[in-house]
Parts: sequence; structure tokens; C-alpha cells
Amino acid sequence: MPIENEIHEKLVTLLNEKKYSEFMREIDEYNPVDAAEFLTLLESERLPAVFRLLKKDTAADVFAELDVELQEEIIKAMTDRELSRIIEDLFVDDAVDMLEEMPANVVKRIMKNASPETRQMINKFLNYSEDSAGSVMTAEYIAVRANMTVSQSLEYIRRTGVDKETVYIVYVTNTRRVLEGTFELKELIFASPDTLIEEIMESDPVSVTTTDDREAVASLISKYDLLALPVVDKENRLVGIVTVDDALDVIEEETTEDIEKMAAILPNDKPYMRTGIFETWKKRIPWLLLLMISATFTSTIITFYESAISASGLIILTAFMPMLMDTGGNAGGQASVTVIRSLSLGDIQLGDFLKILWKEFRVSLLCSATMAIATFAKVMLIDRMYTYENGFMIALVVSLTLGCAIIVAKVVGSMLPILAKRIGLDPAVMASPFITTIVDALTLVIYFQLISRILNVY
Amino acid sequence: MPIENEIHEKLVTLLNEKKYSEFMREIDEYNPVDAAEFLTLLESERLPAVFRLLKKDTAADVFAELDVELQEEIIKAMTDRELSRIIEDLFVDDAVDMLEEMPANVVKRIMKNASPETRQMINKFLNYSEDSAGSVMTAEYIAVRANMTVSQSLEYIRRTGVDKETVYIVYVTNTRRVLEGTFELKELIFASPDTLIEEIMESDPVSVTTTDDREAVASLISKYDLLALPVVDKENRLVGIVTVDDALDVIEEETTEDIEKMAAILPNDKPYMRTGIFETWKKRIPWLLLLMISATFTSTIITFYESAISASGLIILTAFMPMLMDTGGNAGGQASVTVIRSLSLGDIQLGDFLKILWKEFRVSLLCSATMAIATFAKVMLIDRMYTYENGFMIALVVSLTLGCAIIVAKVVGSMLPILAKRIGLDPAVMASPFITTIVDALTLVIYFQLISRILNVY
Repeated sequence: MPIENEIHEKLVTLLNEKKYSEFMREIDEYNPVDAAEFLTLLESERLPAVFRLLKKDTAADVFAELDVELQEEIIKAMTDRELSRIIEDLFVDDAVDMLEEMPANVVKRIMKNASPETRQMINKFLNYSEDSAGSVMTAEYIAVRANMTVSQSLEYIRRTGVDKETVYIVYVTNTRRVLEGTFELKELIFASPDTLIEEIMESDPVSVTTTDDREAVASLISKYDLLALPVVDKENRLVGIVTVDDALDVIEEETTEDIEKMAAILPNDKPYMRTGIFETWKKRIPWLLLLMISATFTSTIITFYESAISASGLIILTAFMPMLMDTGGNAGGQASVTVIRSLSLGDIQLGDFLKILWKEFRVSLLCSATMAIATFAKVMLIDRMYTYENGFMIALVVSLTLGCAIIVAKVVGSMLPILAKRIGLDPAVMASPFITTIVDALTLVIYFQLISRILNVY
Repeated sequence: MPIENEIHEKLVTLLNEKKYSEFMREIDEYNPVDAAEFLTLLESERLPAVFRLLKKDTAADVFAELDVELQEEIIKAMTDRELSRIIEDLFVDDAVDMLEEMPANVVKRIMKNASPETRQMINKFLNYSEDSAGSVMTAEYIAVRANMTVSQSLEYIRRTGVDKETVYIVYVTNTRRVLEGTFELKELIFASPDTLIEEIMESDPVSVTTTDDREAVASLISKYDLLALPVVDKENRLVGIVTVDDALDVIEEETTEDIEKMAAILPNDKPYMRTGIFETWKKRIPWLLLLMISATFTSTIITFYESAISASGLIILTAFMPMLMDTGGNAGGQASVTVIRSLSLGDIQLGDFLKILWKEFRVSLLCSATMAIATFAKVMLIDRMYTYENGFMIALVVSLTLGCAIIVAKVVGSMLPILAKRIGLDPAVMASPFITTIVDALTLVIYFQLISRILNVY
């Protein structure tokens, strides 16, 4: 259970009263995630000292859960020997995650204190690109041979399994480390001791290569309800595994990225509270600037028609512009966001674009008709347009414009993400803010055209 | 590995040539997920016959992966005995998911053919509310007693574990089914055979109750990297477990819901391609209507100032309205979406609202200054405002308005989701479309106020 406030205070009291052995016993009761949360709340000066009180075999687990800033402080206060021990105890993927965010001098010191094997492994992992399966995999898996028996395998797992990330999925490789199969630990429990591994293993397991996209890897794990997925190199040699908990983290990070892109924010991999205000500004300002400049279209369109509007004396028509543009933008946003999310969940494929177009077109007709009628009624009654000389005609133009705008918005909104994906861009950047700008311009053109034709203004 | 096109064709050929035993051997090689995908692509008339060819022990696994429409067709073609067998082989949570979407007469037939125990279990599960831990848990777990030894437990798991959803997390309960602890299967592998379970079990496991929110359950599983989480009733009796693969599904569904709400769509639990156009319309039209009507604010504001604008001859000022409102909306959307996502990931808490306000205020000052300067330059140069008589003053008013609008938008955008959560609403409904409407109105008021003060129009 998470550490409650009173226990947090108790732990702090034990520290203050220097009852260290009692503190050690107490903190050991908790999950490393919770212990890390406790350390995070301490004043930073006492953090390294308190960290030293943790049991040696859980220290690395707690360390892996800390924010990188706190990891850095602890490392600075560590002796080379302590540092070396922590590095060897960390899973390689956690060590690499940490190294990627550390300043160069700290990285240097860490690498100096790592064993040659660990150093080699870390270097290999650092070479995988950030969004690849290689970057999220872990090297600590269990592999046995196909000609071993069930009891031999169990013995092998007993001997080597303690510091592996998972023992529940076991891999079968040959002498050249080529992946031949996989089986679940429970098979060993249910099978008789003399059964050969090749009899129980699944011989054509789902696998990915180090360069595959980490999002695709997470989707496979989610689709097949796997606990772990093997990662192989180009020669089909097993180099690591991605576990379901890492897949969960990938899915959350990638979804956050998608949501940020949809809201016209550059993706950011730090939590909100840990992102500085300049950093936040840097992530938000590019799209604001771009969208502001692209709004030049709308100003140009309005400028082009303005004298006519002004001359007509029907300046009341400008009062409906925000409503028309906003509703068009909302209608387009609905379509684009639905398509973007469905693409990312794999519910629709690029090849479905004709079906999507046909569906969105029919939905847009329904929405368009509903909204046009509602808007006509609203403009006549709520905006009291019937008190105006040309009230009926104005209401007609406004509701017709809205009807057309919704159809255009939904069609454009659903097709742009698909187009983006086809030309290799991320569909998520085509969401509401971008659609809004396009739909605004189109809506205004429709509006002014209808004004000139129906109201005979120009 | 997923079923490739050529294999798909091979399977169809085997069926067409009536080589059923070969077909049975072939399809059995594949994951139930893939077998279900193959069945989905068949013409619906032959589906029940092909389903009958599946091995009895995998039929239920494949069945659970099918869409509810296909499940219904198969059930209609089944004899009562076949139906009874499938129901008993399904995990209770899968049976309940299916029943929730079946027409009443099918539900009746299913319940009639279920064993009394299964019927009782299904009825219990049907009573849990849709978003609760109870609705996503599974009743097939392994529980042992604290005074059993490691070898006794292993023997018990061997005997009873085959049809459990997971054997990797084992629960410890007393005679009254109260949850006393939990341990991982690997502990049994590593411990000596005579060790008592009470020595290896973790005695204060993280658990949830049946009525807890399923999203909170998924977050716990993700936070502590768990394979499964026990669900207890109010008397702390173990009633089920939620496994990590179900947590993954919950996270994906809840995220989709959040994204839909942010895009002003009512949440929908069917994939895009399987949602009819009337259903899609029904999910989209309410927010469109509401936002269209709330845009009455902006029309009213414009109407209020329109004669003055018209009289001033400065109708050029209307050309900047779309840009001002869109940029304000985008700036507000950025803040609100960031806060909504951070709330849902647990990165920020309601209590942090002063910190968030202070941070967004400073970020908005930076964005505001950047955008005001950029807009001033853009209006003077690109819009060639220097060619107008009052060009400099107009550019000044436009950029000052934008600067103020961004500050207001970011502050409102970040605070509304928090306010929504505090009064018990879903923060996601406070995203861009809603913020846009509010920010539009505020931006226009600022604009007209600045016009009247700086340009001395009215």
C-alpha cells in the first residue's frame, strides 16, 4: 500500500531521531515505487545520506524509480565503489534511460565505474534510436536450449533467474543465439519433468527487430495480451525483450505526445511540473506563431470583401462570423480527431480512405442539416433577426453557410490526417488548430459568396 | 506471427476443398487473436460452420476475441449443448462483456444454458457498474492458504491452475476468503520446498474494492508495474483480480474517451468503422449545437459595437477578428489540454492549482510578449498596415489585444479543467472547443475596449 502521511511522518521522525536501523527495517516494508516517492519529498541535502540507509539489494530498484535530477545528486555524493555497485545492479534499460539525461561529466564517471561487460552493453543500447524497440528493451531475459528437459530448465531458471526482469516467459535459442521458440513458465509447472522443451515451446513466436518502432511493439503486446515480446537483430538472434510494463509506459508516452500534437504543442517528454517555463514556452510558441501567420488568409479574405459589406450597410453580417468559423472548426476537429485516434489504435488503415470519406460525407450531411435548421431558428428567434428588414434572407444566408461549412469541415478534417500519414507526416499534427485555420478561410469564402448571390450585395 | 495473406488464402482453399482435418491442424497453429481475425473475414453464412471446426479447448479463446455481432451469429447457429460448453469455457469477464451487448432473447438463452454456478457468477458481475473495478475483474485466480508449504502450493497450482487467467500471481486467503497476502509464482521456484507460504508472501498487498474506478485500478497497475491486482469486497474478501492486459485495454478506452471529450464528441465505445452514421451523428451533434448557441455571446458583443465600427470607417479592424480569436483559442487550448492530460496521468493534483496558475501566468507572459511583437511586425509588414493612415495605431491595438488575449486564454484554459474536476465534472469537457467560446468573447471585449481607448473611435 502507498505510504500514508502518518507513516511518512513516522519515517521522518525516525531519521530525525537517528534511529537508523529501525528506519531501515520500516522503509524496507514498502514497494520501491513508494520508497522512491518518500525520498523525493526529502530535502535534497539529506537525500544521499538517507539513500545510503537502503538495503543493498533494493537500492538499485529504488534508484531506478527516482527522477533524473535526484539520481544525479545521489551519484555526486557517492564513492566510486558505491556507484559501481548501483550500476551493476540496475537493469541495462534503466541505466541507459538515466545516462541519456545526465550531464557529460557524470556520464563519464558512471562509465568509468561500470564493468567492461556492462559498459559494452550500455554502449550498444545507447546506439538504438530513441523511438525504436531497441531503446525500450531489456537485456535481462532467460534463454534455454530446445533439447533441455523441463526439470533441467527449471533448475537453470532457479540458478540464473533471480536478477532477470521476468522469468514467466522463457526463450529458446540455439548456440548461435538465434531465437527458436518461446514458452511460458507455467508450462514447466504443468508438464512432466522429462518432457523436452522443444515439445512444449511455441516455435514461431511473435517477435520484433531492434529497429522496429516502439509504438508498434507496444501495440503487438497489447493486441496479443503478451507479458513480454522478444527483440531480435537482423540475423534473428535474440538481443532483448520488451516487457508489458514497459509497453504500458510507451503507450502512455506516445498518447501524451499525440494529444500534445493535436493541441498544437510540440511533444515534451517531461511531466508538467518538472518542465520549466522557458521550456514550456518553447514547446508552445512555434505553432502559435505559425497559426497566427497562416490566419493572414482570413484577414485577406475579409479585407477583400470589406468595402462591399460596409457599403451594403449590412455590417450585422460580421456579427455571425465568429459563430460560423467556430462551428466549422469544431465540426472539422471532431472528424480529424476521430480519424487520428482510430489510425493510432489501428482501427482504420490508410487503404480505408474511400470508406472513411463516404462515411464522413454522410455524417456531415446529417450534422449539416440539423445545424442549419437549428441555426436558422436561433438567428430568427434568439438574435431577433425578424425585427430586421432583410432578416429572413440574412438568417437564410447564415444557416446555409453553416451547413456548407460543416460538410467542407468534416470532409477536410477526416482526409487531412490520412493524407499526412500517406506522405509520411504524423497525422496528429493535422488536428483542430490546423483544421481551424483552413476551415475558417473556406467558411468565409462561402459566406461572402452566398451574401453576394442571395442578398445581392456587391 | 499474424496470419499473412497467402496463409489466409491457403486456409480458405482448404475450406473450399473440404479438407477439414488439415484446416483444423493449420488454424490451431495460430494465436486465438489471429484465428478470430481470420473468422472475421469470412462470409457470415459460413462462419458458424467454420467455428465448429475449431478445437474444443481453443474455441472459447477465439470466441472471446470476436466482435459481438459475430458472436451473436454463432450463438444463433449453436445447439444448446454447444452453447453451454462455450459459456462454461469463457472467462466470466468475457462472458459478461458479451452479455452486456446481446439482445434480450439471446441473453435469456445463454443464461438458460449456463450452469447454476456460472449463472450466479455472471449475475453478480452484471451488477457491477460499468466503470468499476468489478466490471473489469476476472474471477479465475489462484488462492492458497498461508500455512501451506511451497511444495503443497505448487501441487495445488498444478492441479487447479490450467484454466486460471494467470498463475504468476498467487493470492493468500483465510477460510473466510479474506485476502491475507500475495506472492509471485517465481518465489515458489526460488524457495525451498518446505518453506511456509506465510514466510514468502507480501502481507500488505496493494488492493482495490469492486466499486473503485477502473481507471484508478489501471493507474495502480501501471504505477507499480504489476501483473495483476486483487479486488476485494467491503469485508476485504477476495472476489477477483484485474490483470495487466485488461488494465491496458482500460487505459486505451479511457484515453480515447478523454480525447473524444476534448474534441467535443460524446464518448463512444465502438471502433470507428463499426459505428453507424446515425450513431456518429448523435455523438457529435449535441456539442456542436451547444457551442453554436453559446456563440450568441460573440454575436451580441459584435452587434453592440458594430455601429461604432461602421461609423469610424475602420472596418479594416474586422479583418483581424478571426486571427485574434483563433490565436486566443489555440493558446487557451494548449494550456487546458496540458492540464487535462497531466491530471489524468496523475502528474498534477487538484491541490497544485496555485502552482499551476503561477506557472501558466508566467508562460503566458512569455507567449504574450513574443506573439505581440511578432503580430505587430506581421500586421505592419505583411498586412502592409503602414500604407494606412492610422496604420501604426491599428497594429498597436491588434498586437496589444493579442497579448492580453493570450494571458487571459492561458489562465482560463488552465484553471477551468481544475475547477471542473473540483466540482465533480470530467476535466476533459473543458478542452479547446469550450475554451474557444469563452476566449472568443473575452478577446472581442478586450479588442473593442482597446479600439475605443487607443483609437478614440466611439
